[in-house]
Amino acid sequence: MGSTERLAEFIVNLTFKNIPKEVIDQAKKCFLDWLGVTLGGANYPIANILTEFAGDIGGREQATILGKGIRTNILNAALANGAISHVLDFDDTHTGSLCHVSSPIMPVIFSLGEYKHINGMDCIAAFVSAFETSARIGMAMGPDHYHAGWHATSTLGRLGATAAAGKLLGLNQEEMRHALGIGATQAGGFQIVFGTMCKPFHPGKAAMDGILAAMLAKKGIDSHKDILEAKKGFCEMFSKDVDFIKVTEGLGEEYQILNNTFKPYASCLLTHPSIDAALDLKNTHNISIQDIKKVEGHVAPLVMNVAGKKNPKAALEGKFSIYYCIAVALAEGEVGEDKFTDQRMHDEMLSNLQKLISIEVDTNFDNTTAELTIKTRKGSSYTQKVLAPRGDPRNPLSFSQLEQKFKILAGMVLSEEKIERLITHFQRLEKLEDMSRLIPLCS
Amino acid sequence: MGSTERLAEFIVNLTFKNIPKEVIDQAKKCFLDWLGVTLGGANYPIANILTEFAGDIGGREQATILGKGIRTNILNAALANGAISHVLDFDDTHTGSLCHVSSPIMPVIFSLGEYKHINGMDCIAAFVSAFETSARIGMAMGPDHYHAGWHATSTLGRLGATAAAGKLLGLNQEEMRHALGIGATQAGGFQIVFGTMCKPFHPGKAAMDGILAAMLAKKGIDSHKDILEAKKGFCEMFSKDVDFIKVTEGLGEEYQILNNTFKPYASCLLTHPSIDAALDLKNTHNISIQDIKKVEGHVAPLVMNVAGKKNPKAALEGKFSIYYCIAVALAEGEVGEDKFTDQRMHDEMLSNLQKLISIEVDTNFDNTTAELTIKTRKGSSYTQKVLAPRGDPRNPLSFSQLEQKFKILAGMVLSEEKIERLITHFQRLEKLEDMSRLIPLCS
Repeated sequence: MGSTERLAEFIVNLTFKNIPKEVIDQAKKCFLDWLGVTLGGANYPIANILTEFAGDIGGREQATILGKGIRTNILNAALANGAISHVLDFDDTHTGSLCHVSSPIMPVIFSLGEYKHINGMDCIAAFVSAFETSARIGMAMGPDHYHAGWHATSTLGRLGATAAAGKLLGLNQEEMRHALGIGATQAGGFQIVFGTMCKPFHPGKAAMDGILAAMLAKKGIDSHKDILEAKKGFCEMFSKDVDFIKVTEGLGEEYQILNNTFKPYASCLLTHPSIDAALDLKNTHNISIQDIKKVEGHVAPLVMNVAGKKNPKAALEGKFSIYYCIAVALAEGEVGEDKFTDQRMHDEMLSNLQKLISIEVDTNFDNTTAELTIKTRKGSSYTQKVLAPRGDPRNPLSFSQLEQKFKILAGMVLSEEKIERLITHFQRLEKLEDMSRLIPLCS
Repeated sequence: MGSTERLAEFIVNLTFKNIPKEVIDQAKKCFLDWLGVTLGGANYPIANILTEFAGDIGGREQATILGKGIRTNILNAALANGAISHVLDFDDTHTGSLCHVSSPIMPVIFSLGEYKHINGMDCIAAFVSAFETSARIGMAMGPDHYHAGWHATSTLGRLGATAAAGKLLGLNQEEMRHALGIGATQAGGFQIVFGTMCKPFHPGKAAMDGILAAMLAKKGIDSHKDILEAKKGFCEMFSKDVDFIKVTEGLGEEYQILNNTFKPYASCLLTHPSIDAALDLKNTHNISIQDIKKVEGHVAPLVMNVAGKKNPKAALEGKFSIYYCIAVALAEGEVGEDKFTDQRMHDEMLSNLQKLISIEVDTNFDNTTAELTIKTRKGSSYTQKVLAPRGDPRNPLSFSQLEQKFKILAGMVLSEEKIERLITHFQRLEKLEDMSRLIPLCS
């Protein structure tokens, strides 16, 4: 049985009762965290633009743009919600596929879940099967896919979104294979658009295209049935170094969702080990910024390539500046979304603090490792090494830790009462009878 | 000035009065021919499916699914019309970019032209600027793009569709650069889906994505401004061998639309030289099929790779069978859409005739060359060599020849009166005050 057929079989047949409890618990965290970062982004320009766009072209009132309370059709809603969920760059990451797996899938679950009145158990099963789809295909394609310049969240995202939509629409195995083919042949997305609104646009568009693929497959549009493994199919077109076994090995037994990383800090994931070290040092040794004479860091090579920005001038640059991130951690003890504003980038105290920080690359470090040494004016020297930062699967955030993040982000648009009710719903998501009952709480 | 900037400048600034008359005449042929193949496809399953899909998700009544008379929003209409226009595989081809350039662009012109009440002159200018966009980028990327497995009609189609939509929506040069970036980062589409409904789906989706790109750019979504020439930008991601000069060299002076090929026969373009030779021999020497003892053909290598199908069993296979195409030309003297039905593939006379045909590859032949020799039972031998088949830019079809094709195809859904009125409109398209006046004639 080929990879596509086996994967389609898995997607179609997975049911809530077959999913291990730890996987379900992890999925609930994904729901909570995704909705939080989405609500936190609901007042960004791209949210307003895509809401206006939905109004311009119109559509049946099937699903809701979250945080806005605007109802539109499932495609428009998925486009908007997917883009909004990635605008803060604060969403979860599956590092094995270098992909924000949830961001293109969750908009499908929320849109179709609302429209089709899907219950919590089926939403969880759809999400888990779709997560495995994106994550495993990404792992099979290896790092070459990302290094070539493709934005995995956009490319793989089509397949995860298609799987989720196909499952919620009740496709059979044959239809699911065609749906994956239709989803795959729409896939694209370049990394060079990073730093523009096209980055968050990508997961929104992937979600939209995935719903389209599943709807068309259900109506009889056919495609190549072995789209993953076929010569000049999805994997070969997007990577020079594919290991197909990773698509199916241990499928249904080992769940990639357990390797998902959640972000406690609102910055680039590569800054997190250093932030962790800074917070640990500050708290353990009760260091105030007046005491600091010098900060010396060691990080993995990729960190400086991606997040080595000095003297950031705009909020987004701050998220990709390891200097700013360490400074704000040391100064304020928190690195939430509110720490990244254009105004703060010109804060004199934070600017001065950044000048005390020097970072060197250690080629022996992997991306989750960092070591920080703080030298004080009084002559002390404190060092902290982090191997797996908070939020990493080896150092996971608990549901209640993610609740704190959720409360801050959701608090930008929701009342406390709605926030509490949403948290309760996610804690016992398998009891939810109808996804559409959650939606009025999200705006 | 980079390629993207220069191209955006050209698109934005081109006006009807700057376009040479021969280019305008060629554009009119494209309008006529595209609408014909679209109407001819209006009763195919994909047309019904995409019409039903548009109804499912709804949308403001902005534009019309042609041949159906169903009004929906501009995105849904473009998706449906683009797919329908390619279902017969009877649309025009720009061989220099290996792309059906018109099929993703015309749906944008028809949808936005109707919605925004654009006049004929502006529709022509938008079409011509968009044609140059797709064709020139395709030429810059060279044959590697197609050989790698990408469907150029789908990838390049996004950029042509974006250019057309951006021009009709009145984007300025800056917005056009962002629009091209948004269009490009949605591009994809594999050749391995050929033979499924995903092939015609491609230009429809490209048209839809192009409108989306232009609308979002107008609303302020940004992207990479040099998407074509940037490292890991569109051209580099989709081809290993790019010659950027071809994007801009002679832009506004030499028009690629003049190198567009129209199909007189409803089969794969690579069968056309052989069909031409067969028709010429039949007509010149008054050969009846009872006289034929043997047919010997010589063709270019690619012909047998793509259209070498023996004993076709289904209509679509017949279009890619040089044996069937020659047989039907010799037997019936015409190779229109009505010659390709599942039933005809089992016609005994045509099957027997195919058995008399042998084809050999001549590596010195290019794709537009074929030589056919017919040996008769009475001992005669007639040979005809074709260097550029009818419809090739070197052997062009006149507007009135394309009218004949249009009448047959449009006749599948329209009255004679509507057909005559449409032809008149296209003959003097620059006089049309409002594209929406054409639309009621198209269903």
